[in-house]
Amino acid sequence: MRIIDQRRLPVECVERDLATVDDVCDAIATLAVRGAPAIGVAAAMGLVAALAPHASGSRAAFDTALEHGAAAIASARPTAVNLAWAVRRVAGCARDCPGSARDALTAMRREADAILAEDRAMCNAIGAHGAEFIGDGTRVLTHCNAGALATAGIGTALAPVYLAHLAGIRVSVFADETRPLLQGSRLTAWELVRAGIPVTVIADSMAAALMQRGEVDIVLVGADRIAANGDVANKIGSYALAVVARHHGVPFVVCAPSSTIDATAASGDDIVIELRDPSELRALGVVRTAPATAAAWNPAFDVTPAELVTAIVTDAGVHRAPYTFHA
Amino acid sequence: MRIIDQRRLPVECVERDLATVDDVCDAIATLAVRGAPAIGVAAAMGLVAALAPHASGSRAAFDTALEHGAAAIASARPTAVNLAWAVRRVAGCARDCPGSARDALTAMRREADAILAEDRAMCNAIGAHGAEFIGDGTRVLTHCNAGALATAGIGTALAPVYLAHLAGIRVSVFADETRPLLQGSRLTAWELVRAGIPVTVIADSMAAALMQRGEVDIVLVGADRIAANGDVANKIGSYALAVVARHHGVPFVVCAPSSTIDATAASGDDIVIELRDPSELRALGVVRTAPATAAAWNPAFDVTPAELVTAIVTDAGVHRAPYTFHA
Repeated sequence: MRIIDQRRLPVECVERDLATVDDVCDAIATLAVRGAPAIGVAAAMGLVAALAPHASGSRAAFDTALEHGAAAIASARPTAVNLAWAVRRVAGCARDCPGSARDALTAMRREADAILAEDRAMCNAIGAHGAEFIGDGTRVLTHCNAGALATAGIGTALAPVYLAHLAGIRVSVFADETRPLLQGSRLTAWELVRAGIPVTVIADSMAAALMQRGEVDIVLVGADRIAANGDVANKIGSYALAVVARHHGVPFVVCAPSSTIDATAASGDDIVIELRDPSELRALGVVRTAPATAAAWNPAFDVTPAELVTAIVTDAGVHRAPYTFHA
Repeated sequence: MRIIDQRRLPVECVERDLATVDDVCDAIATLAVRGAPAIGVAAAMGLVAALAPHASGSRAAFDTALEHGAAAIASARPTAVNLAWAVRRVAGCARDCPGSARDALTAMRREADAILAEDRAMCNAIGAHGAEFIGDGTRVLTHCNAGALATAGIGTALAPVYLAHLAGIRVSVFADETRPLLQGSRLTAWELVRAGIPVTVIADSMAAALMQRGEVDIVLVGADRIAANGDVANKIGSYALAVVARHHGVPFVVCAPSSTIDATAASGDDIVIELRDPSELRALGVVRTAPATAAAWNPAFDVTPAELVTAIVTDAGVHRAPYTFHA
C-alpha cells in the first residue's frame, strides 16, 4: 500500500508505504492521504496490508486483529463518510468468508481492489455527468482539492475539468488556496500545472471580489458527506463560497461519489464536524502566523444548506433540488 | 521618525528609524508601516525627517528636495487616500511659508505634529461614536488590522472595542487572519492579546460558518478609501465579509477617519486597486505554499458597495445610507 505523502507537496513528491494499522491511521489523521474518496481507498487497502502478516496464523487471531484494525481505521477521522463505508465493505467480506485466515484476507483484497477500480470508474462517471456544466472558455472556481490527488482516479470536482481538457475544450481554474492547510494552492495548483490546465491561485477571501468582476462562471467543489436532504459537508470555506456564489448568481455545484451520501443523516445537523488543532492557525511550518497565546477556532469542514446547492453531480447522474437521497 | 516594523510581528517587536525619502517609501511599500491612518502619519513625519538635513541650505534647494520627496512618498502606494492627503497638508505648509528653509521645515514639523495629534483624537472620536454598536457581551468580527498598529492612537475599527473594554464592558473579537499577509492573526491578535481583550483567530473562510452558528454580532472593519456614494475600498476579503454578513443579517460597519473619504471618487469604480506581487501567494517566508510556476491573482483591496454597508463611523459621527459625502 503506497501513497503520495500530500503533506510534502508542492515542495517534493514523496511516496510512502503503509504497512500497519498505526501507519494507516496516522496517514489519514495527519492528512498525508486526504480527500474523501482517497481516504476510503487508502483505508480499504491499508486494512488489507495491515492484516497480511496475520494470514498465516489462526482464523481466530486474524478476526481479532481485523476487528481491532477496522475499528481503529474507521475512526481515524470523523467527517468523511467514505472512510467507515470502505472499512465496512472490506471487513464485511472477511466476516462473510468461511475458511482460513488466508481465505479471508484474499476476499478482503479482492474487495479493496474492487473499491479502487470503482473509485476510478466513479471519477470518470462524475466527469461525464458534469460535462454539461463546462463549455468552451468556462472559468471554474474550486476550493480545497477534489482532484486526482483526492481519489484513485481523475478526481471528483476536477473530473469534468480533466475530461473537458482532454476533449480540447478550453477550461481554466481559479484555485482557492484553502487555509489553513492550503490544499488548494499546494495540491490543486500542483496537479493542474502538471496536467497543463491553466490555474490561478487566489486567497480564499478573494473569491467574492473575483465574482464581483464577473470572472467566475461556476463553482465546483467536492464533498465529505452529503445528508439525505442535500446539505453538504465539505472543506471549511465551502459554505462561504456558496453564499457569495448565490449573491452573484454563479452556480454552486457539488461533485461527489454516491458513497459520500449518508442517508442516515437527515440533514447537516446530523453531521459531526471535526475540530482540528488550533495550532494549525498559529504557525505554518516554521513561520509563526499568530501569537502563541492567541485562541483559534479551527473546524475542518462546514455545512452548506441544500438551498444554496445548484446541483449535486454523482457517478449516478446530476441531482437537483429538492434533494431526497435514500439509503 | 521611529516606527514598529510590523513585518516582524508577532515574532518580535522591532523599532526602526526612517531618515530618508527612500526609507519612508520603502517602509510604506513593504508594509513595515501599514494601515491608512498610520501611513498618513508616517508619510507626514517621514517627509519632515527626510527634509531636516536640507534646513541649513538654501530655500531653493529645500523646495526642490521637498517637491521630489513629496511626490515620491505620495505615490508609494496607490489606494490609501490618507497618504496623498497627509503629504499634501505638510508640503502645502512649506509652500505657504515664506522665509528660510528652516522656517519652512518648522512649519512642516508643526503640521506633522498636528496630523499626529489629530489622528489620536480621531481614533477616540470614532471609538465614542461607535460605542452604540457595542453592548455587554458583543462578539465582534474584524478583518485585517484597523487597530492601534494601524494608527497613532487606539485604532479605527478597534477603537469602539478598546473604549468598551476600558469601560468594563465585556467585548470579544474574532480576528480573520487576513491572507495573504496575515495582518489579522499577526497584528490584530497581537495587540488584543497585549491589551487583555479576548481574541480568537479564524481563517478568513471560517467567518461565514461562524455567522451561520450565530456567533457574530457585528462586523467592524476599517477603510482605505471611501467614495462619495459610500462605496468602501478596504483590505481584500472585506467585500466577501459584507456579502456573508448581509446573508446572515449581521451588521457590517466601517470605521474610518473623515480623511479616508475621497469625495472626488463618485463611486468605487473610481478607486484604483493595488495589485501586489503574486509571489505573496506562493510562499510564506521560507515555506512554499504553491508551485513556483502557478499563476496567482493578488489584489490588496476590494470594494464593498454602499448597499452592503450598515453604517460608516467617522470622527464626525455615524453615517447611514444613502451616503452622500462632499469634499
